[in-house]
Amino acid sequence: MTDLPKSMFAVIQKFDGYSGTATGPAIEDAADWVENAEIPVPTPGPGQVLIKLRTASVNPSDLHFIKGEYGQPRVKGAPAGFEGCGDVVATGAGAEALKGQRVAFVASGSGAWAEYALTQAQMCIPLRPEISDDDGAAQIVNPLTAMAMVEIARSEGEAFVVSAATSQLGKLMCGLGRDLGLKPIAMVRRPETVDLLKSHGAAEVIVTTEDDAVSKFAAISAQLKPRVFLDAVSDQLSEQVFCAMPNGARWVSYGKLSSEPPKLTQMGQLIFMSKQIEGFWLTKWMMSTPPEAQMRAVAEVQARFADGRWKTDVSAHVPLNKIVSDLAVALKKSDGKVIITP
Amino acid sequence: MTDLPKSMFAVIQKFDGYSGTATGPAIEDAADWVENAEIPVPTPGPGQVLIKLRTASVNPSDLHFIKGEYGQPRVKGAPAGFEGCGDVVATGAGAEALKGQRVAFVASGSGAWAEYALTQAQMCIPLRPEISDDDGAAQIVNPLTAMAMVEIARSEGEAFVVSAATSQLGKLMCGLGRDLGLKPIAMVRRPETVDLLKSHGAAEVIVTTEDDAVSKFAAISAQLKPRVFLDAVSDQLSEQVFCAMPNGARWVSYGKLSSEPPKLTQMGQLIFMSKQIEGFWLTKWMMSTPPEAQMRAVAEVQARFADGRWKTDVSAHVPLNKIVSDLAVALKKSDGKVIITP
Repeated sequence: MTDLPKSMFAVIQKFDGYSGTATGPAIEDAADWVENAEIPVPTPGPGQVLIKLRTASVNPSDLHFIKGEYGQPRVKGAPAGFEGCGDVVATGAGAEALKGQRVAFVASGSGAWAEYALTQAQMCIPLRPEISDDDGAAQIVNPLTAMAMVEIARSEGEAFVVSAATSQLGKLMCGLGRDLGLKPIAMVRRPETVDLLKSHGAAEVIVTTEDDAVSKFAAISAQLKPRVFLDAVSDQLSEQVFCAMPNGARWVSYGKLSSEPPKLTQMGQLIFMSKQIEGFWLTKWMMSTPPEAQMRAVAEVQARFADGRWKTDVSAHVPLNKIVSDLAVALKKSDGKVIITP
Repeated sequence: MTDLPKSMFAVIQKFDGYSGTATGPAIEDAADWVENAEIPVPTPGPGQVLIKLRTASVNPSDLHFIKGEYGQPRVKGAPAGFEGCGDVVATGAGAEALKGQRVAFVASGSGAWAEYALTQAQMCIPLRPEISDDDGAAQIVNPLTAMAMVEIARSEGEAFVVSAATSQLGKLMCGLGRDLGLKPIAMVRRPETVDLLKSHGAAEVIVTTEDDAVSKFAAISAQLKPRVFLDAVSDQLSEQVFCAMPNGARWVSYGKLSSEPPKLTQMGQLIFMSKQIEGFWLTKWMMSTPPEAQMRAVAEVQARFADGRWKTDVSAHVPLNKIVSDLAVALKKSDGKVIITP
């Protein structure tokens, strides 16, 4: 503990609480929401660990969060960043077993966009040596969401729909679905990504920017009868897709990439066709799923990354001290994840 | 059987199938959708009964149906009308036990807006003598819907929200909720109906036409924490009410009195607050609820009508041969049910 510095570089939030807006995860300039700061290195309390950062990921939830549009209130002056990978360099009472281990983590005490992050021991997953630091940075939020949501899909039938399918999470879900013998129907914006999605496991691919996207989807829906729609976009097209799904369909929204509020044009679909609209949030899943089921999911995630069935496509590495200036530009590349480095 | 006429007067549908529109249950002129006709008296097949009409009710579902906006396709030339009360005058094989009985019924074979209706024996409820023909005409659709939906509300907590609370169904649900020790929160359009709703069992009444309706509801919601919204209107105000409800709230739409398509302005409510949007349809409930549970509900309904806890407020009686000309005007009175007589 003696060789830890007193202060650290961190990217901290500029605002408190919620913004009351719903503008989606796009940012024009990270400086609108976060700033550089030198702040004290936090000290782990009982059950907590201090992690020296190797890598952190940038998820849509991080962007919703710094904009005040996520399910938890911001804290002005606290580091941003939910997820990362690093080495446990100090532990509080009861967390000693993690000392010295390389872990993937979700930050619950002090954010991941900093030289050191603080979290609960149970928010850490010790990493197998085959897993790279880049994969380690994105080992929890997307992979566990994929595991949990594809399980929802599997509980309702063979086919399911995935929007924003070129996202990291979309690709994970298509691959997992295929491996489980299911039929993922992928929705993408760009026609040039159709083959990519098929190689990742999609049984069918709908290009949402084409005029006849909904009628094409309706034809596929009539044939494959998908009962679950795992939706990161949640716009009017999502509603049309939902309306084209068969009896008993569930529209499971887990993100709001679009700022368009969808209109419910056919309430009769809910009344007469037993359809429903609901949400998915990994935090809720973690709080409501038995630990042994979570452990099984975590083990499966690591196995998939270790043997290469899953991998994190990295579009850019951005150092911590360049987040404020460079993150918005780095995020404009849509083919992979931005990874933060110290 | 020999004294039955060969033909009968009936009010028949002018169109087939679905209209593809969603304009709500209001009609300008019944002649737009139905017409008078002399048609053959139907003959009961196995398990069916023929009923000589005493009274029929006019429910919003009847109006949605003749307009082609209900969950079942229209049949051109077939009598309209789902629900009524009458005497079983002929029976098919296996249905002989009902011969001569006065029953409440839902028409499955030939509609209720006719001198004779045809249905399955299991769609009939023999009526206790204390129950009037007017109450008998509205003994199934609204009362069973009330029983089933208040049970959903009770499964989630003490308080629940009822829109269009001055409707017959709204009043039934408020009274039933109060009798079960629950706290119904009634939504009404007209301030002069507040006392009426309180006398019917509402713990709180929100007047939706007042500017501060949503903030008033939010204050009551914070205090009583209603988890179920039984909604016949399904418009933008419904969405605002849903957003003001606590974690885990269920928006259960069972009707579409408004033609306004509600926008989902806060998908985060579904994602982070475990809320969901779903529908209720009595037909589905009947198909999925065990017979003994349905029998219990039917017995409770009759007991409540027999001892006066529930009653049908009748705003007008309209003879069968005046439906085409007079129904639309009769429906404009909003304080009770229109009852059809032969």
